[in-house]
Amino acid sequence: MCRWLAYSGSPLLLERMLLEPEHSLIDQSLNARLGAHATNGDGFGVGWYGEGQMPALYRTTRPAWNDPNLAELSRQIRSEMVFAHVRASTGTAVQQTNCHPFRYGKWLWMHNGAISDFQKVKRELVLAVAPDLYPEIEGSTDSELFFYLALTFGLERNPPAAVARAVGFIEQVGQGHAIAHPLQMTVAVGDGRALWAFRYASSGRSRTLFYSSDPATLRWRYPQNPIFREIDDRTKLVVSEPLGSTRGVWNELPNAHSCTVRNGGIEISAFKPAASI
Amino acid sequence: MCRWLAYSGSPLLLERMLLEPEHSLIDQSLNARLGAHATNGDGFGVGWYGEGQMPALYRTTRPAWNDPNLAELSRQIRSEMVFAHVRASTGTAVQQTNCHPFRYGKWLWMHNGAISDFQKVKRELVLAVAPDLYPEIEGSTDSELFFYLALTFGLERNPPAAVARAVGFIEQVGQGHAIAHPLQMTVAVGDGRALWAFRYASSGRSRTLFYSSDPATLRWRYPQNPIFREIDDRTKLVVSEPLGSTRGVWNELPNAHSCTVRNGGIEISAFKPAASI
Amino acid sequence: MCRWLAYSGSPLLLERMLLEPEHSLIDQSLNARLGAHATNGDGFGVGWYGEGQMPALYRTTRPAWNDPNLAELSRQIRSEMVFAHVRASTGTAVQQTNCHPFRYGKWLWMHNGAISDFQKVKRELVLAVAPDLYPEIEGSTDSELFFYLALTFGLERNPPAAVARAVGFIEQVGQGHAIAHPLQMTVAVGDGRALWAFRYASSGRSRTLFYSSDPATLRWRYPQNPIFREIDDRTKLVVSEPLGSTRGVWNELPNAHSCTVRNGGIEISAFKPAASI
Amino acid sequence: MCRWLAYSGSPLLLERMLLEPEHSLIDQSLNARLGAHATNGDGFGVGWYGEGQMPALYRTTRPAWNDPNLAELSRQIRSEMVFAHVRASTGTAVQQTNCHPFRYGKWLWMHNGAISDFQKVKRELVLAVAPDLYPEIEGSTDSELFFYLALTFGLERNPPAAVARAVGFIEQVGQGHAIAHPLQMTVAVGDGRALWAFRYASSGRSRTLFYSSDPATLRWRYPQNPIFREIDDRTKLVVSEPLGSTRGVWNELPNAHSCTVRNGGIEISAFKPAASI
Repeated sequence: MCRWLAYSGSPLLLERMLLEPEHSLIDQSLNARLGAHATNGDGFGVGWYGEGQMPALYRTTRPAWNDPNLAELSRQIRSEMVFAHVRASTGTAVQQTNCHPFRYGKWLWMHNGAISDFQKVKRELVLAVAPDLYPEIEGSTDSELFFYLALTFGLERNPPAAVARAVGFIEQVGQGHAIAHPLQMTVAVGDGRALWAFRYASSGRSRTLFYSSDPATLRWRYPQNPIFREIDDRTKLVVSEPLGSTRGVWNELPNAHSCTVRNGGIEISAFKPAASI
Repeated sequence: MCRWLAYSGSPLLLERMLLEPEHSLIDQSLNARLGAHATNGDGFGVGWYGEGQMPALYRTTRPAWNDPNLAELSRQIRSEMVFAHVRASTGTAVQQTNCHPFRYGKWLWMHNGAISDFQKVKRELVLAVAPDLYPEIEGSTDSELFFYLALTFGLERNPPAAVARAVGFIEQVGQGHAIAHPLQMTVAVGDGRALWAFRYASSGRSRTLFYSSDPATLRWRYPQNPIFREIDDRTKLVVSEPLGSTRGVWNELPNAHSCTVRNGGIEISAFKPAASI
Repeated sequence: MCRWLAYSGSPLLLERMLLEPEHSLIDQSLNARLGAHATNGDGFGVGWYGEGQMPALYRTTRPAWNDPNLAELSRQIRSEMVFAHVRASTGTAVQQTNCHPFRYGKWLWMHNGAISDFQKVKRELVLAVAPDLYPEIEGSTDSELFFYLALTFGLERNPPAAVARAVGFIEQVGQGHAIAHPLQMTVAVGDGRALWAFRYASSGRSRTLFYSSDPATLRWRYPQNPIFREIDDRTKLVVSEPLGSTRGVWNELPNAHSCTVRNGGIEISAFKPAASI
Repeated sequence: MCRWLAYSGSPLLLERMLLEPEHSLIDQSLNARLGAHATNGDGFGVGWYGEGQMPALYRTTRPAWNDPNLAELSRQIRSEMVFAHVRASTGTAVQQTNCHPFRYGKWLWMHNGAISDFQKVKRELVLAVAPDLYPEIEGSTDSELFFYLALTFGLERNPPAAVARAVGFIEQVGQGHAIAHPLQMTVAVGDGRALWAFRYASSGRSRTLFYSSDPATLRWRYPQNPIFREIDDRTKLVVSEPLGSTRGVWNELPNAHSCTVRNGGIEISAFKPAASI
C-alpha cells in the first residue's frame, strides 16, 4: 500500500534521492521490503517546491520503474523540498488524479495506508469537508479525502492539530459503522518551509516510517560517501523504508508518533487522535 | 463537447457502425461538424450488450482515432445494442473513469453537453444522490453525476420520467445559484432491450440529435447499399451528427424532444423538465 | 522476463483462463514464481482467433493487473485459440508495438527470454530478415525480430524447422560477436489451427514451460472441478508456469524440447538449433 | 503533419513560449492553421538544455492540450534552448519513442513532413545508417531515421552539409523507387549552442516556417508588451506557424532555405540537396 519519501534540505537534484540510492523509491516500486505490497506499480507522483510559491507536480499512472520521463526530470530538477510517492492501489482507479502527492495551494500531502471500508464511510466523510473546499477534490481516493478533512479541520493553521482531528473524525465515523480498525496511515504534509510526518494505526500496528540522522554525524562517520558531503546540515529525509543499508543512517519513528522538520531540525512527538468537534 | 452514437438492432460488428461510415464516430473524433468542438480527442468509450446481462465497457483516455485496440475490437465484437462516445472535456480530468458510457447494473448512460458552473453546484447535486448509490460514482464529471441523479429519481422504473425529474432538479439548483442556463444536453440511456434519447437545453438552443430512417425504406431506395441489406427492419441508430451524406437516412430530433427505441420501433415525444419533488 | 499462456481447445471465455485460475497470468504479472522477474508489469497482450481469419490483438503498456478493459473483454470474448503474455522488459521501450503477441497474417508469436547483447547483434539480424518482410516490423524488441527471422526461414511452411534455423542463425551471429550464450527462449507460435511451443537456451538452462494433462483424465480425477467439465477433450494449455496447484494437471516440457498441439493432441519432440543456411 | 518551435535566447520559463502565446504550440495541437492537419494530437515532446551537457526530454503520447504535467513543467523549467513539437502521425505508431525531438548525445532533432512511401524505402535507408549508430534508433519513424542519416553524413561536424547530403540521399533512394516527390520537410537541429532550421520539399511546395524579428526592434515598436521586455537581444524563435498576430514579429523563411541561429544572430542561406557520396 504505497511507499513514500519526503525531503527537506539543500537544493538537491531529484536523481540523488529518487534514482541513485541503493534501495531507492524506484527500486521500492518494484521490490518494497517492509510494505503490505512488494509491488507499487499503480502510478506515482513527485511534488517539489521550485519557481513560484505553489509546488509543482509530476504524476503519472505508469509504474515509476518504467517511465523514461521521470529519469529525465530527475536529472534536471533541484529542490529544497520534495515529496515522492509510489502507489499500490487499494481499490480505487489507477488515474493521475488518484496519484499522490495531492496539492492545495502551497500544501502537499501524501499517504500510505487506507481508510477501512472506504465505500461505506465515504459519503459521511465527504459531507464533513468544508463546502468551499469540496469542489477542489479531483480524484476518488481515501487519501485525498483525508487531506481535505485535515484542511477542513485547520491544516493551514496547525498541521498536527488538524491531522489529529481528522484522524479522530475518521475513527468516530468508522466506529459508527462498526468498523474495528478505521484507519491505517503514514502521512507527510508540507508547505515548502516545514514538513510534518505521522505514523499511526487504529489497530496499533502501523506501517513503518524512518527519518535520517544528522548529516554532520554521517559525514564524520562516512567521510568517503559523496552524498553526505553534498547535503548540508539542515537536510532531512523521512521515508517509508530505508533507502539503503548504511548503518546509522535511518531511525525508526515509533508507532503513534509524528515528527516536524523545520529550520534544519527535527522534532519527535507522540501523536494521538483528537475529538473532532 | 462530445459526440455519440447509440445502436439498437441486428447483431452487427462494431466496425460497421464505428469505423466504416463515411463520417464515422472515429472521423467525428477528429473532425466533428455540428458540435461545439471540432476535436473530440479527450478519450472515448464503447459499451455493448454481449455475454451476460451486464453490458461490457471499453474505455480509454486516448483519442479514438489513434487507438489500435479499438480497431481490433471493432472487427471482433457483434452486438444488438451499442453505445459509443468520443469526448471533448469541458474541464474535468481526462481519465478512464470520466469516459462515457457510464454503467450501473444493466444500464448504460452517455451525455453530450454540460451542467453550467459545475463546480458551484456540484456539492448540492451530490448530496441529492441516494446514499446507497453515492459510493458507485467513480469519476468526477457532471455527466456521471447527472446519471446518478436520474437513477436516484427512478431511472430503472421509468427512464423518461426520471430524466425529466433530474433535469428539473439540476435547473432548480442552478437557478438557486443564479445560473442563467443550467443545463445543455443530449443523453442516451439503455438497458439492453430499449434505449431512450433526449435533446434539451435550458437555453432553448440544444445540441443536434438525429435518428435513422426505417431500414425497409432505405433498402428499397438504395438497393445497392450493403449496410442496408445487412441490418434488419428493427435496426435504429441515434447519433449526434449524421454518419454520412446519403439522403433520407437521417432525421433530426427536434429540440426538447426525446425518442424511445423499443421492439424495433421508434417513438418521438416532447420532453420537458419535471419538478423534482 | 515475461510469462505467457497459449490455449487451444473448446471456445472458452478468456476470463476462464486469464482471470479465474488460482495463479492466473494476471496473478503472475504481480507475483511470478518461476521467472527471472517476480513482476511482469511492462505491458501485456492477448491475441485470439475469432471473426475472420486473422487473429485479433489487444495490447497495452499498462500492467495487466490494473487494466479494467482486460477484465471487461475477458468476460466477453470466447475463442478456440488464445495467446496471452505479460511483459517484463529487458531494456527495450514499454510501448504497444513491443507487447507480445506479435502478428503476421494469420500467425501469432510470443517469447519469454532474450537475445543476449541485443544491441550488438541487432543490425546483423535485421539484415537477414527478408526485404519484403522487413517493413512489417513495428517495434524494437529482440522477440519481434526473432519472429521475423523465423518467418524469413519458412515459418509458414514448417514452424519447427524455421524456428530451429532462426535459433541456429541467432547463435551463429552471437558466436561471431563472442557472446557466450546468445539465446534464452520459450516461444509459442500458432496459426489458428495448430500451435507450437519451444523451450531452449544456448546455456542449457532454459526458462520453465508446462503443458496441461488430458482433460478426460482430469475430469475423471476431479469430477467436481467445473473448469474440467467445461472444456472438451481437445483442450490443451501451454504455460510458463502452472496456473494452480491441483496435482496432475501440469507436466513440465523438458529443456531443449518442443511440443505441437494439433487436432486435439499434443506431441513432444526434442528441439535443436539447425544450421541456418 | 506536426508543428514545432525552436527557441534560443534568454533563459525563459517554458510556459512563456509554450502556453502563453495567443496561438501557442498547445493551441496549434488543437487548431493548426497552416499545417496539413488541423489536429496534432498524436503525442508531443519538449527537449531543453539545462543541467549537464545532454539535453533533457519530456515526451508523451497524450495530446499536448490535455496533459497536466506539461503545464506543471512549463512553469518550472527555464532554458536557453528549447525544442518543442506536437505530432500528427503519418502512419507510424503513437508511442513515446516516435515523439520528437529525438536526441543523440548533445544533439536534438525534430521534423515536420514525411519521407514519401516510407515503407518502400525504409530498408534501403536503414542500411545506409552507420553500423555503430544503428542500434541507437529507438522508434519507427521516418523522422528519426532521417536524423540518423544526417548523423551518418557528418551532422556533428557540419549540420547544413550533413542535412543536404541526407536529403540528397533520400531523394536518390526515392527516385530509385520511382517516387515522384521523395521528401517533405521542415527540420530543426541544435546542440545547445547553435540551432539550424531547414525548409525544403522535393515537390517545391514545402511546409511553412517562420523566424522572429530582432527583439530590440520589437521592444521599440511594442514598448508595453511584457514578453519583449523579458527576452534579451539574442533571443530568436523559429516556428512552423506564427505564435500570434502581432505585426512585424514573424518573417517567413522562403522555400529551399535554411537559417542558422548562433551567438544571438540569425543567418539565412539557400538550401539545396547535395550528392550523398
